[in-house]
Amino acid sequence: MSFDVTPQSMSFATPLPLRSGTAIADYALAYETYGTLNADRSNAVLVCHALNASHHVAGQYAGQPKSQGWWDNMIGPGKSVDTDRFFVIGINNLGSCFGSTGPMHTNPATGRPWGADFPVVTVEDWVDAQARLLDALGIDTLAAVMGGSLGGMQALSWTLQYPERVRHAAVIASAPNLNAENIAFNEVARRAIVTDPDFHGGHFYDHGVVPKRGLTIARMIGHITYLSDDVMNAKFGRQLREGMQVRYTTHDVEFQIESYLRHQGDKFSEYFDANTYLLITRALDYFDPAAAYGGSLRAAFERAMAKFLLVSFTTDWRFSPARSREIVKALLDNRRSVSYAEIDAPHGHDAFLLDDTRYLGIVRAWFDGIAKELQ
Amino acid sequence: MSFDVTPQSMSFATPLPLRSGTAIADYALAYETYGTLNADRSNAVLVCHALNASHHVAGQYAGQPKSQGWWDNMIGPGKSVDTDRFFVIGINNLGSCFGSTGPMHTNPATGRPWGADFPVVTVEDWVDAQARLLDALGIDTLAAVMGGSLGGMQALSWTLQYPERVRHAAVIASAPNLNAENIAFNEVARRAIVTDPDFHGGHFYDHGVVPKRGLTIARMIGHITYLSDDVMNAKFGRQLREGMQVRYTTHDVEFQIESYLRHQGDKFSEYFDANTYLLITRALDYFDPAAAYGGSLRAAFERAMAKFLLVSFTTDWRFSPARSREIVKALLDNRRSVSYAEIDAPHGHDAFLLDDTRYLGIVRAWFDGIAKELQ
Repeated sequence: MSFDVTPQSMSFATPLPLRSGTAIADYALAYETYGTLNADRSNAVLVCHALNASHHVAGQYAGQPKSQGWWDNMIGPGKSVDTDRFFVIGINNLGSCFGSTGPMHTNPATGRPWGADFPVVTVEDWVDAQARLLDALGIDTLAAVMGGSLGGMQALSWTLQYPERVRHAAVIASAPNLNAENIAFNEVARRAIVTDPDFHGGHFYDHGVVPKRGLTIARMIGHITYLSDDVMNAKFGRQLREGMQVRYTTHDVEFQIESYLRHQGDKFSEYFDANTYLLITRALDYFDPAAAYGGSLRAAFERAMAKFLLVSFTTDWRFSPARSREIVKALLDNRRSVSYAEIDAPHGHDAFLLDDTRYLGIVRAWFDGIAKELQ
Repeated sequence: MSFDVTPQSMSFATPLPLRSGTAIADYALAYETYGTLNADRSNAVLVCHALNASHHVAGQYAGQPKSQGWWDNMIGPGKSVDTDRFFVIGINNLGSCFGSTGPMHTNPATGRPWGADFPVVTVEDWVDAQARLLDALGIDTLAAVMGGSLGGMQALSWTLQYPERVRHAAVIASAPNLNAENIAFNEVARRAIVTDPDFHGGHFYDHGVVPKRGLTIARMIGHITYLSDDVMNAKFGRQLREGMQVRYTTHDVEFQIESYLRHQGDKFSEYFDANTYLLITRALDYFDPAAAYGGSLRAAFERAMAKFLLVSFTTDWRFSPARSREIVKALLDNRRSVSYAEIDAPHGHDAFLLDDTRYLGIVRAWFDGIAKELQ
């Protein structure tokens, strides 16, 4: 059972200063809200999205029964994040291709699509933009900010950039920064896109093409890192496609896993913007709140005031439990309140989007606690 | 201290039947030998190579001081595999781009390069071709067959295809087959090559180009899987290139790991043949000796008669220790003689090529035992 929602958009004329030293003016942010803001405006929950997601977090669009938001299993009336009690906000980040101002929109300086000239945005820039939207909605303080993966990094950054505006933060399947292997996978994906002849230096819109080959490769690489070895072996193993025998070819799709990856890659390349992919992976690469503190995460979190929930998944090798434990340790060193759950789930990084009663139960219990504080 | 060697080549007129149902005639195999075959021809050791290697296993080419073979740290006079006692043979596999007949050679049927029409070869086919070369060299029985990674799969296959011709087999950093994740990485690499517009359906030789973009991506992906997370973090971490600060770009090489991967990819794309890459990764995908026995590795190894040495490396996530233990278990279930060493090395899959005194010492001890049997 889902509920109907309508996406909204808000325009901002005042330039937003960016970490790169430039600024962006006259931008719009797409967002959605679920539930009702209470009288003292204290029940707002901001949900931050990861790479391939948007402001459409929960609910469905009227007449489109398959249009559920990406965290619809988590958020809604009576769900773990209960929209009967919380006013939940989903925002699409700057540079995205799902509604907020991004590379495919018109660059006012040239009258042509921004393309590769869209300013490089960071996690911190996104948080600043989100804070402005909250200002416009009249929300000073968040009951909670939450996110998984790259969304979890934004939640973390909220507690450092606006410590007095965040009472709770749920950081799920995330990390305090990317390690070398994470950056390496991002770099291969970017190279696949940038070296696709249809990329045209990021101005492919003018040529009526998209770098489909590169985007497909990028997504295939991504998918491998989202799944655990275990779940891949359980789902696909070495199975050939239905009714097929070994054909002794190098080109044909023979194994189930090949078929799955090509399908995922093709699908993605038809809706995702290549410049957005570059921007988002670079924002991931750059995120490193400890960097300004000589690499000390403990020092970085001195300023955080929120109460934290950290969740990780045992088979997540993209953002492993060890990375979450680094954050837990830094918070404990600062005597901050933190709950930590390590879920023994087989699904790898993808687990943060899936139904697991233990996981959904933990989030529910944590938000129940926040709801009690509101009464 | 290395020693000078000279590559050799042997031509075969009789067609070699292949698992695909076709055959290849008039092919040549490049090979090298080190040491001296003893009077009763009982001291021969065959070394099988992995993806990016060749018959040039040890020694150096005269006047080329940086031309050491890929296992020169392991094989030579007084080394772990002592060429003062053993007659060591390195063979380049069919379909390779390093000397044996492969896709860039002339297809007698067309008078043009084979390209994508080169027959698909399997691990079993390679072993058959190797056996023919041994026949021609007058070697009936091998004192040992050895290999790492894909080379280890050939060593395994030798003990199943020609059990009476192999007295010992050293299988290092290998696996009884690829799992879904291994196949997935191969598939992404192949897609990057095949969808490169310069691939021209595998007949790029006629166009005077090579699919450099695709090969570069393929190699970058490969390199990530050869290294452990630990060694990548230790070597590169999140370090930026020397003297560089964050530049807020999506195109520039900023992190050390990006620089390393691009360099490895570029270098590889200048000497490796794209069709060979497809063939070798497919041979990897197909290898699965248990398949003919309903998936039972125990049943598959019933026919093996050799004494085995298995070595794995703790941080190897491409061919993890668990995969080697599957082989050890199957051998023990058949009451075969097997020594197994799991080396706690930080280097990931690459460890099988590196200097580790424990690893080199174990191989030395094992070959000392074989040498004693010869006396």
